Amino acid sequence: MEHLTNIEHLGIAVKSLEEGNALYTKILGIPPYKQEAIEAEGVRTSFFKVGSTKIELLEATHAESPIAKFIEKRGEGLHHVAYAVDNIKAEMARLSLEGFRLLNAEPKEGADHKWVCFLHPKDTGGTLIELCQDRG
Amino acid sequence: MEHLTNIEHLGIAVKSLEEGNALYTKILGIPPYKQEAIEAEGVRTSFFKVGSTKIELLEATHAESPIAKFIEKRGEGLHHVAYAVDNIKAEMARLSLEGFRLLNAEPKEGADHKWVCFLHPKDTGGTLIELCQDRG
Repeated sequence: MEHLTNIEHLGIAVKSLEEGNALYTKILGIPPYKQEAIEAEGVRTSFFKVGSTKIELLEATHAESPIAKFIEKRGEGLHHVAYAVDNIKAEMARLSLEGFRLLNAEPKEGADHKWVCFLHPKDTGGTLIELCQDRG
Repeated sequence: MEHLTNIEHLGIAVKSLEEGNALYTKILGIPPYKQEAIEAEGVRTSFFKVGSTKIELLEATHAESPIAKFIEKRGEGLHHVAYAVDNIKAEMARLSLEGFRLLNAEPKEGADHKWVCFLHPKDTGGTLIELCQDRG
Protein backbone atom coordinates (compact mmCIF):
# COMPACT_ATOMS: atom_id res chain seq x y z
CA MET A 1 0.00 0.00 0.00
CA GLU A 2 1.21 3.43 -0.88
CA HIS A 3 0.91 5.84 2.01
CA LEU A 4 1.89 9.13 0.40
CA THR A 5 0.65 8.76 -3.14
CA ASN A 6 2.10 11.82 -4.91
CA ILE A 7 3.62 15.22 -4.36
CA GLU A 8 0.32 17.07 -4.50
CA HIS A 9 2.01 20.48 -4.55
CA LEU A 10 5.11 22.38 -3.59
CA GLY A 11 4.64 25.55 -1.55
CA ILE A 12 6.88 28.53 -2.32
CA ALA A 13 6.94 31.69 -0.19
CA VAL A 14 6.92 34.98 -2.10
CA LYS A 15 6.88 38.59 -0.94
CA SER A 16 4.45 39.63 -3.66
CA LEU A 17 1.94 37.29 -5.28
CA GLU A 18 1.76 39.55 -8.34
CA GLU A 19 5.52 39.44 -8.86
CA GLY A 20 5.62 35.72 -8.06
CA ASN A 21 2.86 35.07 -10.60
CA ALA A 22 4.75 37.00 -13.28
CA LEU A 23 7.99 35.17 -12.44
CA TYR A 24 6.47 31.67 -12.48
CA THR A 25 4.50 32.41 -15.62
CA LYS A 26 7.89 33.05 -17.27
CA ILE A 27 9.56 30.00 -15.73
CA LEU A 28 6.76 27.51 -16.39
CA GLY A 29 5.50 29.10 -19.57
CA ILE A 30 1.90 29.04 -18.28
CA PRO A 31 -0.16 31.36 -16.04
CA PRO A 32 -1.64 30.36 -12.65
CA TYR A 33 -5.01 28.63 -12.96
CA LYS A 34 -6.41 30.07 -9.74
CA GLN A 35 -5.88 32.34 -6.77
CA GLU A 36 -7.27 31.80 -3.31
CA ALA A 37 -7.01 33.54 0.06
CA ILE A 38 -6.99 31.50 3.27
CA GLU A 39 -7.86 34.05 5.93
CA ALA A 40 -7.24 31.71 8.87
CA GLU A 41 -3.66 31.10 7.71
CA GLY A 42 -2.93 34.71 6.78
CA VAL A 43 -2.03 33.84 3.19
CA ARG A 44 -3.00 34.55 -0.38
CA THR A 45 -2.08 31.76 -2.76
CA SER A 46 -1.91 31.04 -6.46
CA PHE A 47 -1.65 27.68 -8.18
CA PHE A 48 0.17 26.51 -11.31
CA LYS A 49 -0.40 23.08 -12.83
CA VAL A 50 2.83 21.19 -13.61
CA GLY A 51 2.18 17.72 -15.00
CA SER A 52 0.58 15.66 -12.24
CA THR A 53 1.51 18.11 -9.50
CA LYS A 54 1.26 21.83 -8.68
CA ILE A 55 3.24 24.86 -7.58
CA GLU A 56 1.54 26.94 -4.88
CA LEU A 57 2.85 30.46 -4.33
CA LEU A 58 2.14 31.89 -0.87
CA GLU A 59 2.09 35.56 0.10
CA ALA A 60 1.54 36.78 3.68
CA THR A 61 -1.51 38.98 4.26
CA HIS A 62 -0.21 40.38 7.57
CA ALA A 63 3.03 40.59 9.57
CA GLU A 64 2.10 37.72 11.93
CA SER A 65 1.42 35.28 9.10
CA PRO A 66 3.66 32.19 9.17
CA ILE A 67 4.75 33.15 5.64
CA ALA A 68 5.86 36.62 6.78
CA LYS A 69 7.89 35.03 9.58
CA PHE A 70 9.37 32.44 7.23
CA ILE A 71 10.49 35.11 4.73
CA GLU A 72 11.91 37.26 7.52
CA LYS A 73 14.03 34.32 8.73
CA ARG A 74 14.90 32.46 5.51
CA GLY A 75 14.04 34.72 2.61
CA GLU A 76 11.74 33.82 -0.27
CA GLY A 77 11.79 30.28 -1.62
CA LEU A 78 10.76 26.70 -0.94
CA HIS A 79 8.39 26.57 2.02
CA HIS A 80 6.70 23.16 2.19
CA VAL A 81 6.07 19.88 0.39
CA ALA A 82 2.49 18.62 0.31
CA TYR A 83 1.91 14.91 -0.18
CA ALA A 84 -1.42 13.56 -1.36
CA VAL A 85 -2.96 10.91 0.88
CA ASP A 86 -6.15 8.91 0.45
CA ASN A 87 -6.96 8.79 4.18
CA ILE A 88 -5.50 11.69 6.11
CA LYS A 89 -6.63 10.47 9.53
CA ALA A 90 -4.99 7.09 8.98
CA GLU A 91 -1.73 8.73 7.83
CA MET A 92 -1.77 11.13 10.76
CA ALA A 93 -2.19 8.18 13.13
CA ARG A 94 0.55 6.17 11.40
CA LEU A 95 3.08 9.03 11.43
CA SER A 96 2.21 10.01 14.98
CA LEU A 97 2.91 6.42 16.09
CA GLU A 98 6.24 6.63 14.22
CA GLY A 99 7.13 9.57 16.47
CA PHE A 100 6.40 12.53 14.19
CA ARG A 101 4.75 15.48 15.91
CA LEU A 102 1.62 16.78 14.15
CA LEU A 103 1.19 20.58 14.07
CA ASN A 104 -2.59 20.11 14.11
CA ALA A 105 -4.21 17.21 15.95
CA GLU A 106 -7.24 17.19 13.63
CA PRO A 107 -7.29 17.72 9.84
CA LYS A 108 -7.93 21.36 9.03
CA GLU A 109 -9.27 23.09 5.92
CA GLY A 110 -6.49 24.09 3.53
CA ALA A 111 -6.41 25.79 0.14
CA ASP A 112 -7.66 24.09 -3.01
CA HIS A 113 -10.48 22.20 -1.25
CA LYS A 114 -8.25 19.98 0.89
CA TRP A 115 -8.04 18.59 4.39
CA VAL A 116 -4.49 19.19 5.58
CA CYS A 117 -2.11 18.37 8.42
CA PHE A 118 1.47 19.59 8.90
CA LEU A 119 4.33 17.61 10.47
CA HIS A 120 6.88 19.31 12.72
CA PRO A 121 9.92 20.18 10.55
CA LYS A 122 12.27 19.32 13.43
CA ASP A 123 11.11 15.70 13.10
CA THR A 124 11.43 15.55 9.29
CA GLY A 125 14.99 16.69 8.65
CA GLY A 126 14.16 20.37 8.28
CA THR A 127 11.38 20.07 5.67
CA LEU A 128 7.88 21.29 6.47
CA ILE A 129 5.66 18.43 5.27
CA GLU A 130 1.93 18.74 4.63
CA LEU A 131 -0.42 15.81 4.19
CA CYS A 132 -3.46 16.61 2.11
CA GLN A 133 -6.63 14.86 1.13
CA ASP A 134 -9.38 16.12 -1.17
CA ARG A 135 -12.41 17.32 0.84
CA GLY A 136 -14.47 15.53 -1.79
CA MET B 1 3.04 23.54 -25.52
CA GLU B 2 4.09 22.61 -22.06
CA HIS B 3 7.61 23.76 -21.31
CA LEU B 4 8.23 22.21 -17.89
CA THR B 5 6.22 19.00 -18.01
CA ASN B 6 6.39 17.73 -14.42
CA ILE B 7 8.24 18.01 -11.14
CA GLU B 8 10.73 15.27 -11.93
CA HIS B 9 12.11 15.24 -8.40
CA LEU B 10 12.62 17.29 -5.29
CA GLY B 11 16.15 17.47 -3.88
CA ILE B 12 16.56 17.42 -0.10
CA ALA B 13 19.92 18.02 1.63
CA VAL B 14 20.74 15.62 4.47
CA LYS B 15 23.79 15.32 6.72
CA SER B 16 23.71 11.53 6.59
CA LEU B 17 22.27 9.50 3.73
CA GLU B 18 21.77 6.50 6.04
CA GLU B 19 19.77 8.56 8.54
CA GLY B 20 17.92 10.32 5.74
CA ASN B 21 17.02 6.99 4.16
CA ALA B 22 15.70 5.67 7.48
CA LEU B 23 13.71 8.87 8.05
CA TYR B 24 12.13 8.96 4.58
CA THR B 25 11.38 5.25 4.67
CA LYS B 26 9.28 6.01 7.75
CA ILE B 27 7.63 9.11 6.26
CA LEU B 28 6.83 7.64 2.85
CA GLY B 29 6.31 4.07 4.01
CA ILE B 30 8.66 2.75 1.28
CA PRO B 31 12.46 2.34 1.01
CA PRO B 32 14.65 4.13 -1.57
CA TYR B 33 14.80 2.34 -4.92
CA LYS B 34 18.38 3.28 -5.66
CA GLN B 35 21.52 5.04 -4.48
CA GLU B 36 24.03 6.79 -6.69
CA ALA B 37 27.20 8.82 -6.16
CA ILE B 38 27.97 11.77 -8.45
CA GLU B 39 31.68 12.33 -7.90
CA ALA B 40 31.84 15.54 -9.96
CA GLU B 41 29.19 17.15 -7.75
CA GLY B 42 30.56 15.83 -4.46
CA VAL B 43 27.29 14.11 -3.54
CA ARG B 44 25.82 10.75 -2.73
CA THR B 45 22.14 10.48 -3.49
CA SER B 46 19.21 8.17 -2.90
CA PHE B 47 15.86 8.15 -4.68
CA PHE B 48 12.33 7.41 -3.50
CA LYS B 49 9.42 7.04 -5.90
CA VAL B 50 6.33 9.08 -4.96
CA GLY B 51 3.53 8.76 -7.50
CA SER B 52 4.72 10.34 -10.74
CA THR B 53 7.64 12.13 -9.10
CA LYS B 54 10.62 11.41 -6.82
CA ILE B 55 12.40 12.51 -3.68
CA GLU B 56 16.19 12.73 -4.02
CA LEU B 57 18.20 12.86 -0.80
CA LEU B 58 21.66 14.43 -1.15
CA GLU B 59 24.62 13.97 1.19
CA ALA B 60 27.94 15.81 0.74
CA THR B 61 31.00 13.62 0.16
CA HIS B 62 33.46 16.36 1.13
CA ALA B 63 33.51 19.77 2.86
CA GLU B 64 33.65 21.74 -0.41
CA SER B 65 30.57 20.05 -1.85
CA PRO B 66 27.70 22.47 -2.63
CA ILE B 67 25.56 20.34 -0.30
CA ALA B 68 28.02 20.77 2.61
CA LYS B 69 27.96 24.53 2.06
CA PHE B 70 24.18 24.60 1.78
CA ILE B 71 23.75 22.70 5.07
CA GLU B 72 26.31 24.92 6.80
CA LYS B 73 24.35 28.01 5.75
CA ARG B 74 20.71 26.86 5.82
CA GLY B 75 20.61 23.54 7.65
CA GLU B 76 19.16 20.31 6.29
CA GLY B 77 16.04 20.48 4.16
CA LEU B 78 14.66 21.43 0.75
CA HIS B 79 17.52 22.08 -1.67
CA HIS B 80 16.18 22.19 -5.25
CA VAL B 81 13.21 21.51 -7.51
CA ALA B 82 13.90 19.59 -10.70
CA TYR B 83 11.50 20.02 -13.60
CA ALA B 84 11.29 17.49 -16.41
CA VAL B 85 11.74 18.94 -19.90
CA ASP B 86 11.56 17.26 -23.30
CA ASN B 87 14.25 19.43 -24.89
CA ILE B 88 16.70 20.83 -22.37
CA LYS B 89 18.65 22.94 -24.88
CA ALA B 90 15.47 24.61 -26.09
CA GLU B 91 14.34 25.34 -22.51
CA MET B 92 17.79 26.67 -21.59
CA ALA B 93 17.65 29.01 -24.59
CA ARG B 94 14.08 30.11 -23.78
CA LEU B 95 14.83 30.85 -20.12
CA SER B 96 18.13 32.52 -20.91
CA LEU B 97 16.29 34.86 -23.31
CA GLU B 98 13.78 35.56 -20.51
CA GLY B 99 16.73 36.83 -18.43
CA PHE B 100 17.41 33.81 -16.18
CA ARG B 101 21.09 33.09 -15.61
CA LEU B 102 22.09 29.47 -16.23
CA LEU B 103 24.61 27.98 -13.79
CA ASN B 104 25.96 25.77 -16.60
CA ALA B 105 26.01 26.96 -20.21
CA GLU B 106 25.79 23.39 -21.56
CA PRO B 107 23.68 20.51 -20.21
CA LYS B 108 25.73 18.39 -17.80
CA GLU B 109 25.35 14.80 -16.63
CA GLY B 110 23.25 14.54 -13.48
CA ALA B 111 22.10 11.65 -11.33
CA ASP B 112 19.50 9.15 -12.51
CA HIS B 113 20.66 9.21 -16.14
CA LYS B 114 19.71 12.82 -16.85
CA TRP B 115 21.02 15.89 -18.64
CA VAL B 116 20.66 18.77 -16.23
CA CYS B 117 20.96 22.54 -16.01
CA PHE B 118 20.52 24.77 -12.95
CA LEU B 119 19.08 28.30 -12.93
CA HIS B 120 20.52 30.98 -10.66
CA PRO B 121 18.35 31.09 -7.49
CA LYS B 122 18.68 34.89 -7.34
CA ASP B 123 16.68 35.03 -10.58
CA THR B 124 13.98 32.57 -9.49
CA GLY B 125 12.76 34.01 -6.18
CA GLY B 126 15.20 32.08 -4.00
CA THR B 127 14.51 28.57 -5.33
CA LEU B 128 17.28 26.55 -6.94
CA ILE B 129 15.65 25.17 -10.10
CA GLU B 130 17.02 22.28 -12.12
CA LEU B 131 15.89 21.38 -15.61
CA CYS B 132 16.34 17.75 -16.47
CA GLN B 133 15.93 15.59 -19.53
CA ASP B 134 16.41 11.83 -19.81
CA ARG B 135 19.76 10.99 -21.43
CA GLY B 136 17.80 8.32 -23.33
